[in-house]
Amino acid sequence: MEISALQKERAGYQPKLPKALQGAVKIKEGEPTQSVDNQEEIKKLFPNTYGMPLVEFIPGDEKNSLEMNVGIILSGGQAPGGHNVISGLFDAVKNLNPNNRLYGFLMGPGGLVDHNYIEITPEFLDEYRNTGGFDMIGSGRTKLEKEEQFEKGLEIIRELNIKAIVIIGGDDSNTNACVLAEYYAAKKYGVQVIGCPKTIDGDLKNDQIETSFGFDTATKTYSELIGNIERDCNSARKYWHFIKLMGRSASHIALECALQTQPNICLISEEVEAKDQTLNDIVEQIASAVASRAAQGQNFGVVLIPEGLIEFIPAIGRLIQELNDLLAAHGDDYKDLDKAAQREYILSHLSEANKATFETLPEGVARQLSLDRDPHGNVQVSLIETEKLISEMIGDKLNQWKKEGKYEGKFSPLHHFFGYEGRCAAPSNFDADYCYALGTSAALLIANGKTGYMAIVKNTTDKTDNWKAGGVPITMMMNMERRNGEMKPVIRKALVELEGEPFKFFTARRDKWAKETCYIYPGPIQYWGPSDVCDQTTKTLALEQK
Amino acid sequence: MEISALQKERAGYQPKLPKALQGAVKIKEGEPTQSVDNQEEIKKLFPNTYGMPLVEFIPGDEKNSLEMNVGIILSGGQAPGGHNVISGLFDAVKNLNPNNRLYGFLMGPGGLVDHNYIEITPEFLDEYRNTGGFDMIGSGRTKLEKEEQFEKGLEIIRELNIKAIVIIGGDDSNTNACVLAEYYAAKKYGVQVIGCPKTIDGDLKNDQIETSFGFDTATKTYSELIGNIERDCNSARKYWHFIKLMGRSASHIALECALQTQPNICLISEEVEAKDQTLNDIVEQIASAVASRAAQGQNFGVVLIPEGLIEFIPAIGRLIQELNDLLAAHGDDYKDLDKAAQREYILSHLSEANKATFETLPEGVARQLSLDRDPHGNVQVSLIETEKLISEMIGDKLNQWKKEGKYEGKFSPLHHFFGYEGRCAAPSNFDADYCYALGTSAALLIANGKTGYMAIVKNTTDKTDNWKAGGVPITMMMNMERRNGEMKPVIRKALVELEGEPFKFFTARRDKWAKETCYIYPGPIQYWGPSDVCDQTTKTLALEQK
Repeated sequence: MEISALQKERAGYQPKLPKALQGAVKIKEGEPTQSVDNQEEIKKLFPNTYGMPLVEFIPGDEKNSLEMNVGIILSGGQAPGGHNVISGLFDAVKNLNPNNRLYGFLMGPGGLVDHNYIEITPEFLDEYRNTGGFDMIGSGRTKLEKEEQFEKGLEIIRELNIKAIVIIGGDDSNTNACVLAEYYAAKKYGVQVIGCPKTIDGDLKNDQIETSFGFDTATKTYSELIGNIERDCNSARKYWHFIKLMGRSASHIALECALQTQPNICLISEEVEAKDQTLNDIVEQIASAVASRAAQGQNFGVVLIPEGLIEFIPAIGRLIQELNDLLAAHGDDYKDLDKAAQREYILSHLSEANKATFETLPEGVARQLSLDRDPHGNVQVSLIETEKLISEMIGDKLNQWKKEGKYEGKFSPLHHFFGYEGRCAAPSNFDADYCYALGTSAALLIANGKTGYMAIVKNTTDKTDNWKAGGVPITMMMNMERRNGEMKPVIRKALVELEGEPFKFFTARRDKWAKETCYIYPGPIQYWGPSDVCDQTTKTLALEQK
Repeated sequence: MEISALQKERAGYQPKLPKALQGAVKIKEGEPTQSVDNQEEIKKLFPNTYGMPLVEFIPGDEKNSLEMNVGIILSGGQAPGGHNVISGLFDAVKNLNPNNRLYGFLMGPGGLVDHNYIEITPEFLDEYRNTGGFDMIGSGRTKLEKEEQFEKGLEIIRELNIKAIVIIGGDDSNTNACVLAEYYAAKKYGVQVIGCPKTIDGDLKNDQIETSFGFDTATKTYSELIGNIERDCNSARKYWHFIKLMGRSASHIALECALQTQPNICLISEEVEAKDQTLNDIVEQIASAVASRAAQGQNFGVVLIPEGLIEFIPAIGRLIQELNDLLAAHGDDYKDLDKAAQREYILSHLSEANKATFETLPEGVARQLSLDRDPHGNVQVSLIETEKLISEMIGDKLNQWKKEGKYEGKFSPLHHFFGYEGRCAAPSNFDADYCYALGTSAALLIANGKTGYMAIVKNTTDKTDNWKAGGVPITMMMNMERRNGEMKPVIRKALVELEGEPFKFFTARRDKWAKETCYIYPGPIQYWGPSDVCDQTTKTLALEQK
């Protein structure tokens, strides 16, 4: 297999392992824990895995040499560093006892159910150390949530003499990991399940999980590109760049990139929702900034837009809800109408408020909302090109202002969407080290008999030596939420906190960034060279932990 | 001004200067030169700057300490390294004599004509050493081609006691630099003009110019992103990514990125033209690769498409030509028709062959071709989303094949366009060094009384110490070409050579790349670390010079 010069040299990187994970370690247990909300319901649903203590690894007296085979699963979207979780787990498992084996289930949780797996050997693993991607064993979106899946998985677990399964995933995958842990515990199968916090979106974090892996690398990759575009923007001085960033539920990515690059505008979905802003409010706000820069002769700028914005605009959220219901009820007659008749049909059936919202939307977007439904009957929000929608509406607004003599200038928008560029980047030093430590922690949680825990690594803004490691009971992070019409126990998703330090830091500066040109050009991720270039955490983490 | 950690550390990088440019140097002159074609016409048009010898710098006996002020102009689109040409020029000019001054004309050639300039001071320059972008003095697209512009420029040249103007630009800007040099020489104004080869497109190269600056950094930045997407593609295993790459006239960028990342497919416009391929040929070719991968269960892949492809498809080129003429002649009546009537109008007026081509185009593209014209009456090809057009047509073809039982699989396309992300990236070590050497050469050409030359640096695949430097008469690279209906002397553009080593290397491997998954992940540009990671040239240059 031909590999790049960077991969060749980077393969030899030995992730820095925190002192707490070196040598003989033992477990220090804290007080029993509670779920973050709905304690009674969660306790009832997880009688065997509820209330367990937080655990931390501290120096021990003698090395554990437990014989144990382990299975690993990558679940959901890619995030930089997944291969290093596997490396850390592998090295720790082999370090316990060289006879131990690590099995990788292929293409996600489905590999466990369908018994598709490989044994991970040292030679095979070496090709993937410190690389991005999930191509080592593949990932998938099969949800592990049914008893028959759990039982089917048990067959291969028994066959391979596997002691524990490690599931690397986001909030939903870790919720399912906990359900599986509870099931195997209730059945007394003696099979442990450990989770690892993965997602570039950064929305799996809380008091115990400082950050999810991949967020660091992905946001640095996007910030490199945004910085490059800012520099182009500031050189050509004639375009407004509208950049949509991946991250449907939360705006952590957009906020982090804004902190790194200081664009003129960055929208934060959580703020839009909290302030009950309309699409028109947002458009007016940006158009005002465009007009005010134009008045100083600056007909250029950069705007960051989180992918999920449109669903967070309350009026549009309500419209989408009513449209979903309307089309579910009347979809069949409706389908055969022509475009104009469909529009009429919708307008005549919508409530007054939603009708008003619908009428403000540009034709293409209205059409998108009234037509394409995913297999569950939901509008496919990701197909809406929010960045183009918004810039088009700004253009209309500016034309109107021009006629009214309120604006003079040129407005030439360009559009970008960054997502796939960052999910499989080679992990930064931070993610390479963090993931390796997470994998090591997972192995030690297994060796210490834990199940229903997620591996955690804390104190991550300090130098790697001083990082702390341990585990958090997954039930501790849960509450009850409505999913597909039913109340379900789920890990609470972390949205951008409007009272949090990162957002406050941003709001204290954004007016200046909008008026002036304060761009910062972070450049590409560096693996060698000065530590202040290579080993910076995200701004979000630095501000949250300061 | 707040700057990133990378910028802080990178500011201190001292570009490696070839030995040939260190210390005292003198000029070695070669034989008189000829233009590449149309020698009689070019000679007649450039009586004062035609036939001059190639020059090379060799070690000299005593240091020149000439007093001279110099003016610098950035012309056209941004390319990484422009600031380093200015740094090299500045340091060399000051090294000749500390009293010398360097003036930067602002926002391109227009700055010379309109007398907008700044003096470049050491403190000011230090903020821009080794940075990307043209924001130091800005760039612009004003064409220097009229005598009144030359005379207006002379006023400020006299006022500032400027001995020479350095113009950093692509083929057209350097052609204009030569026209200016000829004019000032003919008038015996004693003002010299020197060019520098800039363009990320890579199409300003020939026997004397090994590569244009910026190509190295831009293609490495795009290759980083393509590699990341390939890794994502190979992990998720469910998308076909269609990636359009900047570069309207030539496909050097697409070819170089293909050599670096080994995608499944890369289209080369020059080949499409040479083989007289139709859009349908291209679509069938890619659809066959999709179908053949699908038959092996590989419903994923990566396709690179050069931005200018559509104009190189001969049938579409002819159609565009006829449409331009048709709409120029009948534009006014036509404008008031509705969409359907416009389509009818066009179909009834086109020749049979072009009508047939027009009818094969998807509605949106046909509409684009029949509607929006730029101020010169030309179709705005860059507004056509070629990557979406092609993937849409492939989807249709695959559906047809599915009905005919010839194809089974899933085809989910995703689209990207990379251009603005790379034009202002911080220069790679190669571009940082190469540009600094070009700036130094420009200063020495001036000090040696040369005009109508471009600064050149050769032997660039060897280590920097051994690079050679000198100058090439711009007339040597010229031939006569039709521009806006008139024959003009212009620098011959370098398209991808179908007999050249880079293309041959590619064609020898592309069938394997299409069938198998041979992706290479180059990762981000590194500035520190192992030399084989940090100091690689492009594959194109390595293959051409081997």
